[in-house]
Amino acid sequence: MNEFFPTIQPIQYQGPESTNPFAFKHYQADKLIMGKTMAEHLRMAACYWHNFCWQGSDVFGAGTFQRPWFSADSEMQAAKLKADAAFEFFTKLGISYYSFHDVDIAPEGKNIREYIENFSEMVDVLEAKQATTGMKLLWGTANAFSNPRFMSGAASNPNPEVFAYAATQVCHAMQATHRLKGENYVLWGGREGYETLLNTDLKRERNQLGRFMQMVVEHKHNIGFQGTLLIEPKPAEPTKHQYDYDTATVFGFLKEFGLENDIKVNIEANHATLAGHSFHHEIATACSLGILGSIDANQGDPQLGWDTDQFPTSVEEYTLATYEILKSGGFQTGGYMFDTKLRRQSIDLEDLFHGHIGAMDTLALSLEKAAAMLEEQKLNALVEKRYEKWQDTLGQSILNGNMTLSQVAEHVEKHNLNPSPESGRQEMLENLVNAYIRR
Amino acid sequence: MNEFFPTIQPIQYQGPESTNPFAFKHYQADKLIMGKTMAEHLRMAACYWHNFCWQGSDVFGAGTFQRPWFSADSEMQAAKLKADAAFEFFTKLGISYYSFHDVDIAPEGKNIREYIENFSEMVDVLEAKQATTGMKLLWGTANAFSNPRFMSGAASNPNPEVFAYAATQVCHAMQATHRLKGENYVLWGGREGYETLLNTDLKRERNQLGRFMQMVVEHKHNIGFQGTLLIEPKPAEPTKHQYDYDTATVFGFLKEFGLENDIKVNIEANHATLAGHSFHHEIATACSLGILGSIDANQGDPQLGWDTDQFPTSVEEYTLATYEILKSGGFQTGGYMFDTKLRRQSIDLEDLFHGHIGAMDTLALSLEKAAAMLEEQKLNALVEKRYEKWQDTLGQSILNGNMTLSQVAEHVEKHNLNPSPESGRQEMLENLVNAYIRR
Amino acid sequence: MNEFFPTIQPIQYQGPESTNPFAFKHYQADKLIMGKTMAEHLRMAACYWHNFCWQGSDVFGAGTFQRPWFSADSEMQAAKLKADAAFEFFTKLGISYYSFHDVDIAPEGKNIREYIENFSEMVDVLEAKQATTGMKLLWGTANAFSNPRFMSGAASNPNPEVFAYAATQVCHAMQATHRLKGENYVLWGGREGYETLLNTDLKRERNQLGRFMQMVVEHKHNIGFQGTLLIEPKPAEPTKHQYDYDTATVFGFLKEFGLENDIKVNIEANHATLAGHSFHHEIATACSLGILGSIDANQGDPQLGWDTDQFPTSVEEYTLATYEILKSGGFQTGGYMFDTKLRRQSIDLEDLFHGHIGAMDTLALSLEKAAAMLEEQKLNALVEKRYEKWQDTLGQSILNGNMTLSQVAEHVEKHNLNPSPESGRQEMLENLVNAYIRR
Amino acid sequence: MNEFFPTIQPIQYQGPESTNPFAFKHYQADKLIMGKTMAEHLRMAACYWHNFCWQGSDVFGAGTFQRPWFSADSEMQAAKLKADAAFEFFTKLGISYYSFHDVDIAPEGKNIREYIENFSEMVDVLEAKQATTGMKLLWGTANAFSNPRFMSGAASNPNPEVFAYAATQVCHAMQATHRLKGENYVLWGGREGYETLLNTDLKRERNQLGRFMQMVVEHKHNIGFQGTLLIEPKPAEPTKHQYDYDTATVFGFLKEFGLENDIKVNIEANHATLAGHSFHHEIATACSLGILGSIDANQGDPQLGWDTDQFPTSVEEYTLATYEILKSGGFQTGGYMFDTKLRRQSIDLEDLFHGHIGAMDTLALSLEKAAAMLEEQKLNALVEKRYEKWQDTLGQSILNGNMTLSQVAEHVEKHNLNPSPESGRQEMLENLVNAYIRR
Repeated sequence: MNEFFPTIQPIQYQGPESTNPFAFKHYQADKLIMGKTMAEHLRMAACYWHNFCWQGSDVFGAGTFQRPWFSADSEMQAAKLKADAAFEFFTKLGISYYSFHDVDIAPEGKNIREYIENFSEMVDVLEAKQATTGMKLLWGTANAFSNPRFMSGAASNPNPEVFAYAATQVCHAMQATHRLKGENYVLWGGREGYETLLNTDLKRERNQLGRFMQMVVEHKHNIGFQGTLLIEPKPAEPTKHQYDYDTATVFGFLKEFGLENDIKVNIEANHATLAGHSFHHEIATACSLGILGSIDANQGDPQLGWDTDQFPTSVEEYTLATYEILKSGGFQTGGYMFDTKLRRQSIDLEDLFHGHIGAMDTLALSLEKAAAMLEEQKLNALVEKRYEKWQDTLGQSILNGNMTLSQVAEHVEKHNLNPSPESGRQEMLENLVNAYIRR
Repeated sequence: MNEFFPTIQPIQYQGPESTNPFAFKHYQADKLIMGKTMAEHLRMAACYWHNFCWQGSDVFGAGTFQRPWFSADSEMQAAKLKADAAFEFFTKLGISYYSFHDVDIAPEGKNIREYIENFSEMVDVLEAKQATTGMKLLWGTANAFSNPRFMSGAASNPNPEVFAYAATQVCHAMQATHRLKGENYVLWGGREGYETLLNTDLKRERNQLGRFMQMVVEHKHNIGFQGTLLIEPKPAEPTKHQYDYDTATVFGFLKEFGLENDIKVNIEANHATLAGHSFHHEIATACSLGILGSIDANQGDPQLGWDTDQFPTSVEEYTLATYEILKSGGFQTGGYMFDTKLRRQSIDLEDLFHGHIGAMDTLALSLEKAAAMLEEQKLNALVEKRYEKWQDTLGQSILNGNMTLSQVAEHVEKHNLNPSPESGRQEMLENLVNAYIRR
Repeated sequence: MNEFFPTIQPIQYQGPESTNPFAFKHYQADKLIMGKTMAEHLRMAACYWHNFCWQGSDVFGAGTFQRPWFSADSEMQAAKLKADAAFEFFTKLGISYYSFHDVDIAPEGKNIREYIENFSEMVDVLEAKQATTGMKLLWGTANAFSNPRFMSGAASNPNPEVFAYAATQVCHAMQATHRLKGENYVLWGGREGYETLLNTDLKRERNQLGRFMQMVVEHKHNIGFQGTLLIEPKPAEPTKHQYDYDTATVFGFLKEFGLENDIKVNIEANHATLAGHSFHHEIATACSLGILGSIDANQGDPQLGWDTDQFPTSVEEYTLATYEILKSGGFQTGGYMFDTKLRRQSIDLEDLFHGHIGAMDTLALSLEKAAAMLEEQKLNALVEKRYEKWQDTLGQSILNGNMTLSQVAEHVEKHNLNPSPESGRQEMLENLVNAYIRR
Repeated sequence: MNEFFPTIQPIQYQGPESTNPFAFKHYQADKLIMGKTMAEHLRMAACYWHNFCWQGSDVFGAGTFQRPWFSADSEMQAAKLKADAAFEFFTKLGISYYSFHDVDIAPEGKNIREYIENFSEMVDVLEAKQATTGMKLLWGTANAFSNPRFMSGAASNPNPEVFAYAATQVCHAMQATHRLKGENYVLWGGREGYETLLNTDLKRERNQLGRFMQMVVEHKHNIGFQGTLLIEPKPAEPTKHQYDYDTATVFGFLKEFGLENDIKVNIEANHATLAGHSFHHEIATACSLGILGSIDANQGDPQLGWDTDQFPTSVEEYTLATYEILKSGGFQTGGYMFDTKLRRQSIDLEDLFHGHIGAMDTLALSLEKAAAMLEEQKLNALVEKRYEKWQDTLGQSILNGNMTLSQVAEHVEKHNLNPSPESGRQEMLENLVNAYIRR
């Protein structure tokens, strides 16, 4: 087997004082935090597509990455080299999980039969590699958006044969995920949306999508897959409008089609901000609705209107994200998946390590700060206290449905109620949070 | 009674060649289009707040409007002058409907008892004016966001007494709307949102809001109000995040609290664009979900990140909006309400007429073009045709739930299906729509 | 010679009532408007790159266009087929001008020598085609952004050899433009910007860029090129920040390097909106600074944060654009170049015609409306009148430099000046403009 | 004299472990960093307007702040109470500088004569307070945007009398700043822009603005004011478009009117992001152009499209800002001015302290990290190295103007140059910067 990163030794923890760029400064897989190891809390995963498939192209330029695993005698041979590179990378990085699309790991082939054959062969390869390395699959998914046949959508396509083609891929990708003991299965509807309303029947496409998801849920139960199904919201790109716009939109969709107990969300930081929300907002919303599944941990550029999928670098942002997750009980089957890509100018193989080491350290440090914030309960106590009047008679009568609108009005008029506002104390709370982040 | 617009004669239709700025060039109230008059189709309304209450201030400057109805011996006297001005304006403009918040028409008073007294007295005044002028109330609403007591929300406030205060206002505003034969009642949750997640319990606030809306629905039935209840989505402003973000978010909320048959949406064009959607999108979404109620007809500035509430001037945009509405059966109880304000520099009383005449002409022309587009059915036929394969066996089996995911996959594999993409024809469809707009 | 569009006849004007999608409804090349033909006013051009080179790929998907000219025995053979297709298209469309990048028309080759050879051969081909068809070149340009060597910029690259490579391409592209009688030469600095400030020396890169432009100006004079040099502003994409952000930024750059008399701007509608400006703003700004050169006529999607390069469809928008241009004297060497691409789903060859016919009709109609608005001088007269007080003594003394700040203050104090505001009349002016657009 | 903050003791440094919300955790005024104290480096200032004049209103709601200094027997009396409150606050906070608009400190009066009288009296008051407390004035400015007379601009107004009125205010505000030993004078053109291009002559308004600034420069020299003149860029709000859009735009304006040696920029973080730039970008740009003057230290909300003027809380962001400033030699006459306002719900007097303590700690910590980064020179060395090839013959010949475009092309062709790209190493550099921020 080839070695693709011969100069890189397995990445070790060396502490914050280390100046070695190939060492962790904060991530210690086995360090105990609130009774679990860092690795168990964070459940971090590296992705296959950006790291091993993407060639560094963008809309205005050709690929800049010249990877040794890109060229081989055949597509299948290249797929195997790519798997070698991927697992060497995962192992040297010391990350526990990975994730893939069907077409990341195996050539698509000229038709569905070739697809199945190639995919099946490569699943065997991955299974063997998992066994050897101990790597685990956080989630699998199917790419039903890159091939031109999906240009007008997969499940929401005007042609049911395209729906069927996508269903076939999902069927095989779910089976593979099941076999590889994947802990989740993700559905990102990259082309499930529209380019123009002029040619689109929204109601019809929504029904197609609802039916698709119901079939996926049934299939999960049929094959005995124990993992979690996840929809990944995104507002747009490549489409003008994507139906899974954000967490709140997905929630309405799940309710309509009776799926809210079977499907959760996989929230991506950069998708959140493209949808006009803070990352923190999307996580808190999903937690409050009971549908938080997993996270695509990356970051966007606040000045750019497209998905830049950068490596997370902000402890200030990820402390709040991690705090919400810990507060809601921590990840169950989900984790922090790095849906991150190198900048197109970061053409060296080493850059793959720089990106991930920085990201893993960011999350490790965020975890430490979030855990301290949660354990000390100061922030939470202040929030609880803010709502305490709802424990009193008036509040409880309202919430329990014991008062009608007229009765409430009578109560107010009778007592001539005139409630005074109380400070929201935002600046003080920001200082409190910063005290944790900065210590 | 004072006359506030002595130089203005009732606005008449004079046709597109007219150069009289105080005449309609396109709006003919009685002109028949598809079996109904323009007035019946458009159901246009002028608002009380921007036109008669707002003083022309902005965040960086004091009010620029010096209206004769602003100064009077007492607040109640000013309220009556304002009503005189408003109904003189409505009548001279020749618009059929108007809309108001409780505190637009009557002074808030120092406490709830004064509020009730003032409001009741002014509802009498309006009732008399409606009788005299024939003006109709499109919708009423309560302002539970301007008074400092609502700074942290109304129904979503951490203090149940504030919830109760807002409930009292809504109770009275619904009663007034009912008495004035209002055709809808609107709820815009201007402060139902958060400034910072650090002091906010999303789940709790959502439940409070859900309970509030359930009480409103019960109350509607209790008092026998036949109009439609409407939630008006907006993503933010004044809050950092508003819970009624957009139509899809409201839909999820309605489903969660069992309200989807009792509450519809009042879509504002400028709120749509602030939420990252086209106006057309929000209307088409509401139609597809069966919850379109009414429209706040205005327009934002595409370069500005706040609600500019400008008068609608674009036939290109409003033709598409009106087409969707006509296609879904036209307005039932809703209409086009001009939630529009003059630019702060438009300080003359005449400018109120310029703004509304332009807006009404914009909608009238849009109606004519949309109606032609719908009557000729060309666009619709092309959309229908695009999905026609879903009528065949495969499509029907999928939609009817007769095939599992595995069965679909078997079908694809067996037939080695390889569907070809077909042109979405966006440019051709744009030309088709433009042919209607330009003729 | 192959025929690529055998079913399409040369596009003819058939008037607004025509339902033939392959006819102009508004564009009549020879129609006289204000003493010039429509063709002379609009100077419309089709582009080579989007129409004949782009394969319909996007960041999330492979090319969807299967063009007959993509496959040939050799790259040079394909380039010639492409030229055949392009000129057949231009001619059948009846457009007067075209534009290209060096690498659109000829294979880049493996190195600069192959580049030069291929390019030179293809310039011969284009010269012959121009002679045969009467097509004219609006502008040429060099692509110094797609090849990986330009990933960190061309003139602003940290490696002077990359600067030199780009300079070589520009040298040849200018020569070719000169020979083909191009009327302008465009410089779009697609990668002249940065991805991260962490690795960037802004001052140094600005100086490199300034020097590059000075060399280009010198070269223009050296070879006797009579056309206009144009910089095309864009705020970002592909870079995080592009140095030629917008018109005002370019103006500052030109002033700094003494280039303001030698270089003008080529304004793209979609670049304007990405920079946070209206298209109208960018044109009016360039006119007011005396640096308007040419226009890339397209439109963006107001909800999307990237360059969508859609065909212009809005008469409402292009009437204002065209009015500014006419008011400033009309295009000199510039024109309306369609830097537009089909939607990725518009895969039929016919769609190329739909897009351009719609665009040309949009501009033709906009021209008619703008000309009427200018000829009648109503709008202009109102603007002039608004500033008339500046003709009086006080205004003239200020502008002529005859008063110091203190003298102005003394004047105000002495006369206790207290100027009253006057209505800006925005709504009335919008109605006035709409009266032209709608008639 | 009244005491307005009786419960607050002067804020002391207590170190990062302190849980006292009324103590600095990082700001030690006298701590030496790179040879200067923290106070000397940061030159922090509190503002008069948001803290002592603003009443907590927003566009949708009335003021929520009930400050004891708002009510007094007369306007002048209130102004004096406000001054008492302000200087008590400044002193207890332990900040060195403050800033004001003319109308913040004194009542505007009914006309210019009253304005002058009131203003003059209050300048005496402030002078006395400065003497007593040792507070220094970072900068003064005039508010020529709030009064309705400025609704259509000040210097750019269509009425020269409004220009003159604004000039009079500026004349007096400059005099006052001079007398109070202010170190800078700021010009923010809040209404120097347009609402609609339809009524606007851009060229004319630009010339008016240019003349205004020339008069201000002359006046500075006439009165012997030694401070720096600063323009504060902002893209919009309250106007649709503001002429001082961003730093690059201001630079072009300064060059056009020959002002680039006399006027610098005062960059506000929130204005930077509203203009589509990172704060870091605006600072780096101003440094590279040699026009960095001072900073308005605040932060916006990345999801909101208006100026939220929040207290700075991000060490991640301010470390980079401070690094640029230190690298360019540190502040000369400028400083970090907190143009920040409490959230409208932060109604307690204490909240003023929370906001500023958090902000000052943020800047202090950012300074420490930036200084370490600069002292160790690692980042800078990597940047320098990236451009080192420009020291060689080819690079120098190009930059020195010794080669024409043709000569460069000949060189490339002769040597068949084919430069290879090198990694931009963004991820590694981000890790390097984070190592400083996190230690």
